[in-house]
This record gives sequence, structure tokens and C-alpha cells, in this order.
Amino acid sequence: MTTQCTTAARPCERLVSADRIVTQDPECPIIEKGAIALDKGRILALGTRAAMESAYAPAARLDLGEALLMPGLVNAHTHASMTLLRGLADDLPLMTWLNEHIFPVEQRLTRELTKTGALLACAEMMRLGVTAFTDMYLLEDGVFEAADEAGLRMLGGEVVFAFPSPAYTGTPATLDCIRRQAGQWQGHSRIRVAVMPHAVYTTTPELLTACRDFAEKEDLPLHMHLAETPAETTACLEAQGKRPVPYCRDLGLLSPRMNLAHCVDLTEEEMDILAESGVIVSHCPRSNMKLASGVSPVPAMLERGIPVAIGTDGAASNNALNVFADMSAAALLHKVHTLSPTALPATAALDLATLGGAKAMHMPDAGALKAGNVADIIALDISGPSFTPLHNPASSLVYATSGQEVRMTMVEGEILYLDGEYSRFNLADLRARMAEAVAELTSA
Amino acid sequence: MTTQCTTAARPCERLVSADRIVTQDPECPIIEKGAIALDKGRILALGTRAAMESAYAPAARLDLGEALLMPGLVNAHTHASMTLLRGLADDLPLMTWLNEHIFPVEQRLTRELTKTGALLACAEMMRLGVTAFTDMYLLEDGVFEAADEAGLRMLGGEVVFAFPSPAYTGTPATLDCIRRQAGQWQGHSRIRVAVMPHAVYTTTPELLTACRDFAEKEDLPLHMHLAETPAETTACLEAQGKRPVPYCRDLGLLSPRMNLAHCVDLTEEEMDILAESGVIVSHCPRSNMKLASGVSPVPAMLERGIPVAIGTDGAASNNALNVFADMSAAALLHKVHTLSPTALPATAALDLATLGGAKAMHMPDAGALKAGNVADIIALDISGPSFTPLHNPASSLVYATSGQEVRMTMVEGEILYLDGEYSRFNLADLRARMAEAVAELTSA
Repeated sequence: MTTQCTTAARPCERLVSADRIVTQDPECPIIEKGAIALDKGRILALGTRAAMESAYAPAARLDLGEALLMPGLVNAHTHASMTLLRGLADDLPLMTWLNEHIFPVEQRLTRELTKTGALLACAEMMRLGVTAFTDMYLLEDGVFEAADEAGLRMLGGEVVFAFPSPAYTGTPATLDCIRRQAGQWQGHSRIRVAVMPHAVYTTTPELLTACRDFAEKEDLPLHMHLAETPAETTACLEAQGKRPVPYCRDLGLLSPRMNLAHCVDLTEEEMDILAESGVIVSHCPRSNMKLASGVSPVPAMLERGIPVAIGTDGAASNNALNVFADMSAAALLHKVHTLSPTALPATAALDLATLGGAKAMHMPDAGALKAGNVADIIALDISGPSFTPLHNPASSLVYATSGQEVRMTMVEGEILYLDGEYSRFNLADLRARMAEAVAELTSA
Repeated sequence: MTTQCTTAARPCERLVSADRIVTQDPECPIIEKGAIALDKGRILALGTRAAMESAYAPAARLDLGEALLMPGLVNAHTHASMTLLRGLADDLPLMTWLNEHIFPVEQRLTRELTKTGALLACAEMMRLGVTAFTDMYLLEDGVFEAADEAGLRMLGGEVVFAFPSPAYTGTPATLDCIRRQAGQWQGHSRIRVAVMPHAVYTTTPELLTACRDFAEKEDLPLHMHLAETPAETTACLEAQGKRPVPYCRDLGLLSPRMNLAHCVDLTEEEMDILAESGVIVSHCPRSNMKLASGVSPVPAMLERGIPVAIGTDGAASNNALNVFADMSAAALLHKVHTLSPTALPATAALDLATLGGAKAMHMPDAGALKAGNVADIIALDISGPSFTPLHNPASSLVYATSGQEVRMTMVEGEILYLDGEYSRFNLADLRARMAEAVAELTSA
């Protein structure tokens, strides 16, 4: 009678294997012929497939063959429900676009409509390898429900304006709404609520102060648009006598709790202020390019140690929720803008969309594949011609990947998308609901 | 006895149908539920599916359902064989990249290696909806053979330097080489030879004059890199006492025969010179961004009536041969560079990659789907989330398409790629050949 070696193997729920793993863990960045052991939504261990096969006895296996496993991408700034408005109006001056096309349609939003738009956005994001997103919008209840149903990780917030929105009618009601949402989703493993004042030009100093105090009291993250355009700066100077960054600093808004979207129009001194404050910046290159907002000084912010993440912004100004495309745009844009071919190299761009995104969403256990971290993992097909040869995975992921190479998207160990199939919903049904929602929203 | 209506139907080889057709023909830009009748490599007619079904009796049918048919994209400037060097060295200063990484490896090229690299490039381009490309490289014989075998349309040329290349050893030999190639491919329906001096900094005035005379005598198109970087301008001023555009004008090189790649560093006066001369410009936004060359003044060139096309450049500086990605980059880059959200709208960007590309390749019967034109057609899956909703096809094609949505690529009526299958070769075998070629090329 012989004793089998496998008797020493530790049980785990699943072993996922593929030809390459890009871990984003500096201690072990690339694993060839690798495997990841998963249990209870987390990574137990990872290593070569041979080593993992002898160490673990998985209940299930998923071998993806000629694929590349990597951490799920983080979309650190979006308005998911704006998929409803994708392509409705493009190539227009900003104020024409907002006032004549976007705002009038948004007045007709309902919670059911924001939910449908957000569900479609979740389908799009998981199809393109996004496992977590930060979302700010009107009637955010619908977006929380969508993320809950879809299975993605989300940091969301009802957008706070100084004027009534379809969701509330004044400051106390606004904060009541956020308090209710925070209570409703408290303890959810994937969903967290944040306080999200819209921007300096749509709020008052009193409202921003109230948001700050509320976030501190309730221990919630903060997220807002800041310094998106030179026009915002001019308006802030006129209304408040200060540029946006000093204005927010003086109101006590800038802290590690805060994730600022855009940060395009910054002075050197303002970057120093941001660095000292501990804020995180969500860079949205394709949106900034399409709306002609300007170029965010990302390399200069990184030099100062400011954590930077990548956001797609909404589908009305991008027009896809494709973090691979934004990662590529960032790496290319900063080179030509600084006239330096070494600006934002591929590895740095990849860091923004993974490690940077995890920071922006206050998730210390995400952004890299390593033992103990959440099992938010994606797999890309690397058998196509654009991945041949594959001298340098980071370079191919940033400069040659379209996003559609994603074969699998997993959040908390659950496979949400695999080879064209969505496990939690039927895409055709969702698209039919979406068509009805768009018709309802855009009918006169 | 009844007479059947179908007796009046005209025979044709194939009827291709899909939910939408974007024709790029201004007389009938969009057809819903459309079909295209094909015969002998050309478009016989197109219209609604119902109308076409009653007018034609096709020998074969291809109904693509929820797809969008459009003209194949044109890649108006590339070095196809540089797929061999994809990802070999990135994020480096231009001269380090060229002198330490690209040039040493290129010295080891053989005709068989350029052919393998170009075959892989053809597979990549047809996967991403490119039906025609303009190619300049060393040992171009291998690239002509690759395009012939792969089925794509090509305008190619042996690159002409003032110094020896692996393909020839002096000016008479260079022109002899081009004469031989032109003779070899004369009469080929898809392949045409052009005269391609590399650039002002790698040639002499005598050599450029010889190229001009040779092109005129043999009635061949001309293609060269021009005004790619400010450094090129400085070098040209030092060596020739003139900036690149006036230098080439004075040598008589600028005419409708000439397609100039890049055209980044231009003055207003130089744009006027280009407009008067009738040249075509191939804009390579992603390569210009990655190499930090600068931003080509495309909107200003278009205002002057200069025809502009889109090129990917080689896979060592992009790193994918994805014209959809370059079209998107162009539309976004020029908005942020000019700080105008109306610069290069989606429809204009789409024109560059289709109608502009056809001009750059001197193909008056391509770039749009209309009766009499070549049947160079692609189909995109529009059932994915990024195409939902589809308010505006041009906007979605430029701002939301990754390129991987391409389901079918057809050249001269022949289906080269359909739903993951390549009709003329086996991708796995080609990738194995490519791996061997890369190993041979990069071994010390």
C-alpha cells in the first residue's frame, strides 16, 4: 500500500491557470505557466502551475491555456448610467453639449433608468476587464443596485449639487440621502458609499464644508471633479477669489480621504499642495482629450509622489468604458505632451490602472495578485496576432491591447464573464431593456 | 402557369447583408437592413436587403445579422515586417531606440524574415479590418510575397537609402531593384510598386532627384517620411540649408504622385506649399505620440484641402497595426492639442481612414461602398455593450470601437477573415514560424 503525495495538498475552491501571470506584485512580477489558488473570494497563493498543483487540491479548475492573468482593472472615475447617452451628441463645444444635450435629458432620469444604464455599463466594464469602479451620478440608488446585481466592486455616491436634483431638494435632504445609502450598503463586501460633491462650480463653500464634516463623521471617502478646465479656474477665481486647489485646501477638503477626478489645470504650487495633502487623483485622458479640457500633468504629479489612477469618465465623453484604451491614451499622450519618449512608460501606465486604482478606491488588498488579496482577476487571450511576439507583457498590455482580448473577468472569486458568456445576466435581454430606456429618455 | 418575379433577378456571385451599412458614399451614407451584391471582386449594387433580394439572384449569401458593414480601412503608412520587433524595446529616447535596438537587429534581416513578419502583420491587419496598406521596408520582396499570399491590397516599395542596405549596394542597384519589383508585380490586381526614398536625412539631393525622375519615367507613386521631428528639420537646415518641405519642393519631389508620412514639424507656409503641390499626407498619431515626435497639424492641413490618410507606422512604434486605434487617437489628439472639442469630428476621422487612405494609395475605386468600387469590405459585430446604444455609427466607430469587433474582412470579394477563421492560412502555424523568426533575429 502506497501513500499518495496528494494527501498533503491543501484544499481550495478553485485553481486558475494560464501561460502567463502579470501579478503587479513587485516581489514576483511575472510567472510563466502559473496558477492561482482561490478560496472564499481571496487569493490563497500563486506560483508555477506545477508547484500549485502539488500544493493544492482544488474543488474546481479553470485552465485558460494561452492567456495572461492579471489583476482586474480599476475604473477610478465614471458615471456608469451615462451609457444611456452614448453617442447622443459628440464633437460639440462643452457648454452646447452640456446645456443643450446632456442636462435636458438628465432631467428626465429615474432610478429605474439609471439602473438600466449602469447595468449595461457593468456588462461593458466586465467585458473589458474592469473589476471595480468609482461612480458619481444622480439617483445613484439605481447604480448601487446595478453593481450589486452585476457582481462588480463599486465605490459610489449620490452627486451633491447646491441645487435640487431628481434625487433630493436641499442640503439636509442630500446628506440624509447619503446617510441612508451608507446605512443600506454597510457591510457589503463589494459596495461602499462615498460623499461626492460634484465640483466647485456647482456647490457653495457651505455645502463643501458640510460634505467634509459629514465624510469625517461617518468615515466615508470623498470624491469630486476638480480643476478639469481652465474655464473652471476662471469661474472659481471670480466666484471665490481663489483657484480651485487652494479653495478646496482652505475648506479642508484635501486629505487622503479624497479622490479628485481630472486635475488638468494645475500650477506647480498646486501640485505641491496636492502632494502634501495625501489626495489621490483620477486621470481621465480620453475624456479630457475629447472635451478638449487640456492635459493633466500626470508625470509631474507622479514625480511628487501623488497617487494617480485611471478613469474613463462617462460614456457620453469617451465613448467606451475601456480602461485599456485610457491606459494606452495616457502613456501616449504624456509622451507627446512633454516631448519625452520616456514619459509614463508602459509599466507606470499599468500601475495607474491597477495599483493606483486600488488606492483611489481605498482597497489595500486589491490592485495586485498576491496571497491574501481579493480574487479580482482577469484573463486575456494572448494567441492573437497583436500579441505576437510577446517580448514584454507590460508593453503589449499598454500599447497593443484593445480590451476585447479579455476572456474572463472574476470578482471576489466569482466568474462574471467567460468567453462571451455573462454568468449573471443575459446580454440580449439587457440590451433590449436598454433600448427601451433610451427611447424613454430621449423621446421629446 | 405563372411567371415568377425572380426571373428578372440579375445573377451575382454573392449577396452580403447586415443590419447597418456605413457606405462612406455621401450620396447614401447609411443603409439600415442593407445588402451588397458582389461580382468579380467589385460591388455591383447596394441597397436595402429587401430591394437587393428582389433585384439579384446570388450564387452565395452571407448574412451577418447584427453587424455593421463598411469599407475596409486603409493603413497608409507602415513597415509590416517590424512586427518582428514588437515590444523589443519601448519607452526609450529615439536615438537610443534606433541605434541600440532597431538598427542592429535590422542588419540581420533576410528576405524570408521580412516575409514572415509581414505575413503576421497581414494577419493582424485583416483581423482589425484593414484591407489595404502602404509599406516601406528593407528586403521588400518578402513583403510583396506576403501580401500576395495573404490576399491584402498593397502599395509597397524597397526603402531607398544613400548607403548600402541588405537589399542593394548603391544607387543604380537600388533603382534596378525597384524596376525589377515593378516588372514582377505589374498587372497584379492588388499589388503595386512605388518608389520610396526613406527620408531627407538618409538620402542625398542626387538620390532624391534620381527617385523623382525614375518615378516619373516609370509612372510609379512616391512615398517617403517627411518632417517627422524638429530634429529632422534642424539636421536638414544644417545639411541642406533648407527645412524639409522647401528642400523637397525645390527638388521637384512634391506632386500628386507623393504620399508623405508624418508631416509633424510644419510651418503655415509649408502647409501652403503642400496644398499647392497636391501631395497626400499619411498621419501616424500613435507613433508620433509614442516617439514624442510632436503633433501633426492635421486640422490645419484639412482646412487647406490637403488629403490626409491614417497610418499605424510599424509595430515597433505603436505597437499594434490597429487603424481603429489610430483613428480614435487622431480624433482625440487634435481636440486636446487645439483645445477645440469640434476639431477633427468623428466623421472626418472616419474619412481619413477610408476615403483618405484610398487617395493615399491612388485607388479612385476604393474607400467607399458604391457600385463599381472594389469589394474591399469589413463587418463589425455591433451586438456588444460598447455599441449600445448606437445613436451615431461614426461616433461609435471612432470613439468606442477597439478594432477587435471586426468579424469579417473581404478584399476583392474574397473573404480573408470571418469569425475567428483565416481562409488563407493557419494562425497557429504562422505564429510558430514567427517565433522561430524572432529567435533567429534577436539571437546575439
